Amino acid sequence: MVKCLYNVIPKLTVVLFAISLLGCVASPGLRLDDSGETPVSSVYQATVAQLISAALADSFAYNRLAELTDSFGPRFSGTKNLEDAIDWILEEMKQDGFENVRGEEVMIPRWVRGNEWARLESPWKKDLAMLGLGGSVATPAEGITAEVLVVGSFEELKKRADEAEGKIVLFNVPFTNYGETVRYRYAGASAAAKAGAVASLIRSVGPFSMNTPHTGGMGYEEDIPKIPHAAITMEDAMMLGRMAERGERIVASLYMEAHFEDDVSSRNVVAELVGRENPEEIVVLGGHIDSWDVGQGAMDDGGGCVAAWQAVKLMQDIGLRPRRTVRVVLWTNEENGLRGGNGYRDAHREELDNHILAMESDAGVFKPEGFGFSGSPEALSIIREIAQLLQPIGAGEIKEKGGGADIGPIMKEGVPGMGLNVDGSNYFWYHHTNADTMDKLDPHEMNLCVAAMAVMAYVVADMPERLPR
Amino acid sequence: MVKCLYNVIPKLTVVLFAISLLGCVASPGLRLDDSGETPVSSVYQATVAQLISAALADSFAYNRLAELTDSFGPRFSGTKNLEDAIDWILEEMKQDGFENVRGEEVMIPRWVRGNEWARLESPWKKDLAMLGLGGSVATPAEGITAEVLVVGSFEELKKRADEAEGKIVLFNVPFTNYGETVRYRYAGASAAAKAGAVASLIRSVGPFSMNTPHTGGMGYEEDIPKIPHAAITMEDAMMLGRMAERGERIVASLYMEAHFEDDVSSRNVVAELVGRENPEEIVVLGGHIDSWDVGQGAMDDGGGCVAAWQAVKLMQDIGLRPRRTVRVVLWTNEENGLRGGNGYRDAHREELDNHILAMESDAGVFKPEGFGFSGSPEALSIIREIAQLLQPIGAGEIKEKGGGADIGPIMKEGVPGMGLNVDGSNYFWYHHTNADTMDKLDPHEMNLCVAAMAVMAYVVADMPERLPR
Repeated sequence: MVKCLYNVIPKLTVVLFAISLLGCVASPGLRLDDSGETPVSSVYQATVAQLISAALADSFAYNRLAELTDSFGPRFSGTKNLEDAIDWILEEMKQDGFENVRGEEVMIPRWVRGNEWARLESPWKKDLAMLGLGGSVATPAEGITAEVLVVGSFEELKKRADEAEGKIVLFNVPFTNYGETVRYRYAGASAAAKAGAVASLIRSVGPFSMNTPHTGGMGYEEDIPKIPHAAITMEDAMMLGRMAERGERIVASLYMEAHFEDDVSSRNVVAELVGRENPEEIVVLGGHIDSWDVGQGAMDDGGGCVAAWQAVKLMQDIGLRPRRTVRVVLWTNEENGLRGGNGYRDAHREELDNHILAMESDAGVFKPEGFGFSGSPEALSIIREIAQLLQPIGAGEIKEKGGGADIGPIMKEGVPGMGLNVDGSNYFWYHHTNADTMDKLDPHEMNLCVAAMAVMAYVVADMPERLPR
Repeated sequence: MVKCLYNVIPKLTVVLFAISLLGCVASPGLRLDDSGETPVSSVYQATVAQLISAALADSFAYNRLAELTDSFGPRFSGTKNLEDAIDWILEEMKQDGFENVRGEEVMIPRWVRGNEWARLESPWKKDLAMLGLGGSVATPAEGITAEVLVVGSFEELKKRADEAEGKIVLFNVPFTNYGETVRYRYAGASAAAKAGAVASLIRSVGPFSMNTPHTGGMGYEEDIPKIPHAAITMEDAMMLGRMAERGERIVASLYMEAHFEDDVSSRNVVAELVGRENPEEIVVLGGHIDSWDVGQGAMDDGGGCVAAWQAVKLMQDIGLRPRRTVRVVLWTNEENGLRGGNGYRDAHREELDNHILAMESDAGVFKPEGFGFSGSPEALSIIREIAQLLQPIGAGEIKEKGGGADIGPIMKEGVPGMGLNVDGSNYFWYHHTNADTMDKLDPHEMNLCVAAMAVMAYVVADMPERLPR
């Protein structure tokens, strides 16, 4: 298998392709097998050139994403925005000529933010830009006004637990990395409630702010009182931190109407380019169509959805039909439930053995660097060989371990998974904020993401042998 | 005069100073006069070293600015915040040991923002982050709901004037530079009203946004109907622009309570280090103590105020008393009236001939690069010589032309003026926004600004001859 793939792409042709396509240096590191075997798929080099060329030809993908996000806005689980957007996508996909276009029903949670605000009351009055955290309970109808206890960590809260009774605890925790800092968003409320706090606030989870609060999911521990939990901006959290250091008494008010309503029906969007020889074997690629209820959900994850969609559209436009089925899936409810990913696993359980590969783009369609891959060492070697085809556009780096939230459930069932890796420099500036908007994305970078996904998906779907598990 | 100044600072000493202070390379470009004249002020080299060393010693200036801006918030003309901040500053200056500390009364305008909001109504409902522009009138009490006409320039509005009747005009003008783009903020309302519009919106004046509207002053032409005028975010303006390009019908609502009330009393803060030989001769330095009613006014212009204040405090702390008086002035009402600058000119008209130099910092206390200077060629040469003393901290560049809004009125009366020039890369990201907060400033960069202002003010105040006009 690996040997065959070595032979797929004669080195010189790749070099010429790389030069002709991008005027850049030759693909480094491609090893050429001299065994003399006939290349099984010597067509790939030309096909890949076609796919990349088509991907970079215009701003169709960017404009389609703009139309989606401008026309329907953020696509929060349980909203008409989301279902209207799904209706529009299904219609567009049919018009594109996709096969088996359908919405697969999934029941999803409906958390409603409602009106909400926070205000500094003392030492001076100031509206605090804020976003309630997804899953939080409401305040009492009259709101909460209380002294603020500022802490820098869970450890500090434990040490100062006797000061927290009846107060609003603010976790003023600087961003280090997402995994480290998001713990306060997810678990801050219960930690504060254990110490007797009546509400909890976090410094928004991000490295840079222009008065930009970040929302995101949170949870409550069982048997601990549920208290309202919201994010304020980094600026305000830092200011309150400085005030506390000066020994000033801080009083704030918080009002939130947040609550859950009954689960509602949503859909995973599914569309296919049916395989010509092994239609039962499936390469899945996609992103999540829901977003938080702020901004446009352009980066997270409208871009991933449209990039995957466009990757398969390019195959169609060029007239390609790979051996296996290529299936675009736009999962619903990633942000506050993962019901789409779980629902897909349940609905397609019988097919999972024939899921050859699942690929997700959910890190923003910034300049792509390659993929992270989770699968067997044998499969990893093959993926690395295919990725050589992406060196000309700088997207050929394959890292071990990768995937995505939505494909997590089927990866646990044994499906090899991969996630598109991109330049993530600014991802957490915009993540879950009103600044996640079209202008943060670049049409050419998005096209490069489309190219990377198209090439990888096509070759895996078309190569003679199945990607081994 | 120039010759004397050449001799002030023996080259070797400056080099040693530069190396010892910052571990960096020698001051380039210092010319040494070999005429053999006795240096008139050979003490400056050591004094400058003392001033710079003291300026860089700790974060006192930054912490004082943080205390000011954290304790009183933004300091908008006509607010208690502003007057409370002025009271606090006067008290602190007295405790610092400044002489002739006083508030000099100035009557200032009081524009009140009131409640305000904007909302996209169609094609979908979205709250539009916005800020009314300073000086705007209110909407009718029921607000305004109207179709939006998006234009990219005054010229386009003129061409499409027949489409504007009864609509809200949005000037979706990308930021090029402040002078070019701010025209739409200042003059957009009357241009739109001439075409029959009922309200006008601008794309916020700045190069980068994270859902960050920018306020700022605006004006109305006489005999043109006054319509409400507000700024929305760059993101939303671009989105509406894309919608318009797609031919979509856009409807928005605007509500503003903005209005003027009677003028109120405010104060220019004045404090002195009285000169030991020519106390009637004055070097003025300062910034404006008022800010817009958003953020903390940390960059614009709390930082300039505290830097000037600190520059003179350092002279006191070191025990310096220059020949001439050094006067710190924190002007009021720069942002929406310039009454402080005009009032200072009027109150000190008799003294203006003895104003040797006026210096302002109002470009943010980012990394200083030098000064812009407006004065005679002879004075410019002297200033350039003095600036050599700032080469070790990289702040020795003197550009022709410079000043500041608040010192503009006295510069027009003949007072030589200068403005601190800094790295302005991000200034317009935060300008007049809720993101103008302490965290955008850096203690060391602020200290460098203090050092630059202290050295320049001290040498001009102390050198044997007056800076010529």
